[in-house]
Amino acid sequence: MTTPLRLGIAGLGTVGTGLIKIVQTNGDLLARRAGRAVEIVAVCARSRTRNRGVDISGYAWEDDPVALARRPDIDVVVELMGGENGPAKALTEAAIAAGKHVVSANKALLAIHGQALAEAAEAQGVSLRYEAAVAGGIPVIKSLAEGLAGNRITRIKGVMNGTCNYILTRMEDAGLPYDTVFEEANQLGYLEADPTLDVGGIDAAHKLTLLSAIAFGVRPDFDAIALEGIQRISIEDIRAAADLGLRIKLLGVAQMTGRGLEQSMTPCLVPADSPLGQLKGGTNMIVIEGDAVDQIILRGPGAGEGPTASAVIGDVIDIARGFHMPVFGQPAATLDVAVSAKAMGSKPWYLRMGLMDKPGALAKVAEALGNAGVSINRMRQYGHQDTRAPVLIITHKTTRDAIDHAVDLSMKTGVVVGEPVALAIEED
Amino acid sequence: MTTPLRLGIAGLGTVGTGLIKIVQTNGDLLARRAGRAVEIVAVCARSRTRNRGVDISGYAWEDDPVALARRPDIDVVVELMGGENGPAKALTEAAIAAGKHVVSANKALLAIHGQALAEAAEAQGVSLRYEAAVAGGIPVIKSLAEGLAGNRITRIKGVMNGTCNYILTRMEDAGLPYDTVFEEANQLGYLEADPTLDVGGIDAAHKLTLLSAIAFGVRPDFDAIALEGIQRISIEDIRAAADLGLRIKLLGVAQMTGRGLEQSMTPCLVPADSPLGQLKGGTNMIVIEGDAVDQIILRGPGAGEGPTASAVIGDVIDIARGFHMPVFGQPAATLDVAVSAKAMGSKPWYLRMGLMDKPGALAKVAEALGNAGVSINRMRQYGHQDTRAPVLIITHKTTRDAIDHAVDLSMKTGVVVGEPVALAIEED
Repeated sequence: MTTPLRLGIAGLGTVGTGLIKIVQTNGDLLARRAGRAVEIVAVCARSRTRNRGVDISGYAWEDDPVALARRPDIDVVVELMGGENGPAKALTEAAIAAGKHVVSANKALLAIHGQALAEAAEAQGVSLRYEAAVAGGIPVIKSLAEGLAGNRITRIKGVMNGTCNYILTRMEDAGLPYDTVFEEANQLGYLEADPTLDVGGIDAAHKLTLLSAIAFGVRPDFDAIALEGIQRISIEDIRAAADLGLRIKLLGVAQMTGRGLEQSMTPCLVPADSPLGQLKGGTNMIVIEGDAVDQIILRGPGAGEGPTASAVIGDVIDIARGFHMPVFGQPAATLDVAVSAKAMGSKPWYLRMGLMDKPGALAKVAEALGNAGVSINRMRQYGHQDTRAPVLIITHKTTRDAIDHAVDLSMKTGVVVGEPVALAIEED
Repeated sequence: MTTPLRLGIAGLGTVGTGLIKIVQTNGDLLARRAGRAVEIVAVCARSRTRNRGVDISGYAWEDDPVALARRPDIDVVVELMGGENGPAKALTEAAIAAGKHVVSANKALLAIHGQALAEAAEAQGVSLRYEAAVAGGIPVIKSLAEGLAGNRITRIKGVMNGTCNYILTRMEDAGLPYDTVFEEANQLGYLEADPTLDVGGIDAAHKLTLLSAIAFGVRPDFDAIALEGIQRISIEDIRAAADLGLRIKLLGVAQMTGRGLEQSMTPCLVPADSPLGQLKGGTNMIVIEGDAVDQIILRGPGAGEGPTASAVIGDVIDIARGFHMPVFGQPAATLDVAVSAKAMGSKPWYLRMGLMDKPGALAKVAEALGNAGVSINRMRQYGHQDTRAPVLIITHKTTRDAIDHAVDLSMKTGVVVGEPVALAIEED
């Protein structure tokens, strides 16, 4: 194959700009490694004239993404617009229908419409690759779908949203409350236009949806993930965790159990001295466990111009080399519908609640937990100055269902002030 | 492609046994992911009757590896015999000549004969894959040659020999001398038949040779690596390092500089709280730095039945999927001859030497260092009970050449007892 591979790029934000820089800077290297030249033929974005620090004058311009997708002089459409519907979806569908390979960084689109897009791509015999959609520069899709393809994957866990990890580590390091650090992150431009995508765990859950589909051979199903953001994590939680030798992470966990596939993206406590516990700032980490490989840990930048563009160009080179495989590692038609297990496996839990400062309050809560079948390992009541007594409980191993029940019963005692915080402790 | 992919396995030790287990246990999974069944057709090993815990009665038996390689009913030859020459080399050459794909776990063979084998494989249009040759279950070859292929790689460093890492961490944790822990490792079966392959750094340098070839587009050249084993690391060094907040690792470093490619596999000091510093026991870790991706860290089991077989079967699935690429990521004919830069980049160094306990000894050594252009950052003389005064010196940043020169001049003072230990400090 000595003909160039011709790209059309839709979306010229940070990642699109990074991709153009790589193609312009490392062109010789790409050609040597891909076995053929990689050329950008056409681009499409909201503004043609915005200064991006790269010269796009040599590329054809399209105002309409769908028109870009249909250009006969393009082999691969690179979708860097984002959004689970609208132009990104139209472009991707049009590209596949036109027989183009697609490289996408769009986790939302794939988590929601992945099954239909995979079926369409496989019917057309084109590749749909999305390394950049998960964990930025870390080659985690490749590791999972290819390198570890001989393994029955038993568990995936990881930190997949750098913004949340930045906020949580900054709260601990600076001793600042959530709201202050959230505002800092906003000022620094770390947050999505809709910050709930980040702090609500949605972005990270999109990513986990894709990893789960590959790992467990199930249809991508975003709604099957138990989802909770970091908005209710207080500096008290951070400090209490530290006292226990733990750290709070927005942790994605997916594991196959006898009762089905359990998937969650929730704030969890991990040992402070574990690789996950030591992860600071915007870095991502994915832990993959399989029956043969035991455990692999991948760590790297979860976002940013260079790292995300690195993942995109990796996919492009795969296509240039003629690598072709099903979108989720096995034919989309063979993916199972995930039976989702709502109750997580049995784990210790951290519960923090505020109690009314009156006799018998603690006893009532302890009784409520007992009635829910939740047994207490450790309990601590902190000194306090207002009428709310902060109480911290570490349970013995129990399920999410039991904890939810225990929280319900506790609320019904009438002695709990505000909403309790319940966090699973992921010890291993 | 619905015809099965047919394997012939040469070598039924730990890894071969692990491979058979995966194929027998995860057959359905492999077929779904590979798009075709993966079948073992024939095997070859030293003993036909040894009990390996797996049933090999369904496979054809070959006494002669070369005969296995030439069987017309085999598509892929899996070479798990080891050794840089002899039967492994004959088998690999015969397989390539017969138009078979080869999957190898043989780092020594590839580090020494990789260029010729790559040229032969590429001339025949067959794949030669070797994920299992480097860092066991970690998909590092795939990450580097494929996932990060859009990057100009700037540096690779890592811990690539689990036995050495076990010995060094055990020395620190148990406060035991090298000889004692070496004997323990021997008893535990952690050492190669020729232990110099492990503790002399040769095995790890074979791995670094392969990573360097891919990362920097150079012909694999084992002899270009500055090599030093861990045999001279004493418990005093371990303790002195700990005092400085550092840990000793047998660290591979490959980086392109203005003066050429610098490659070393030597004991180095790394910050104790860094990911490399925290790596315990037999685990491997590879740090990859590229112009786009910044830094990726991969961690996992560096050896063992399951992990190594996981890497082998990953390569087999790639072949089943029809993935084909040059052996070192670009055509072997285009690989550069590495200009090897003997002098390492400028780093701080750790020097430990024993001085005769007499007036002026320290001044003589300090003068020798000055004459070699090595400037001292910190110096510490420890209390001692014999006539040898242990002296520890941390230099300002300097080159390996300058350090070698400083050691030479120090030896010529006549006040140094025994051989000094010089270790580079890899701070970042």
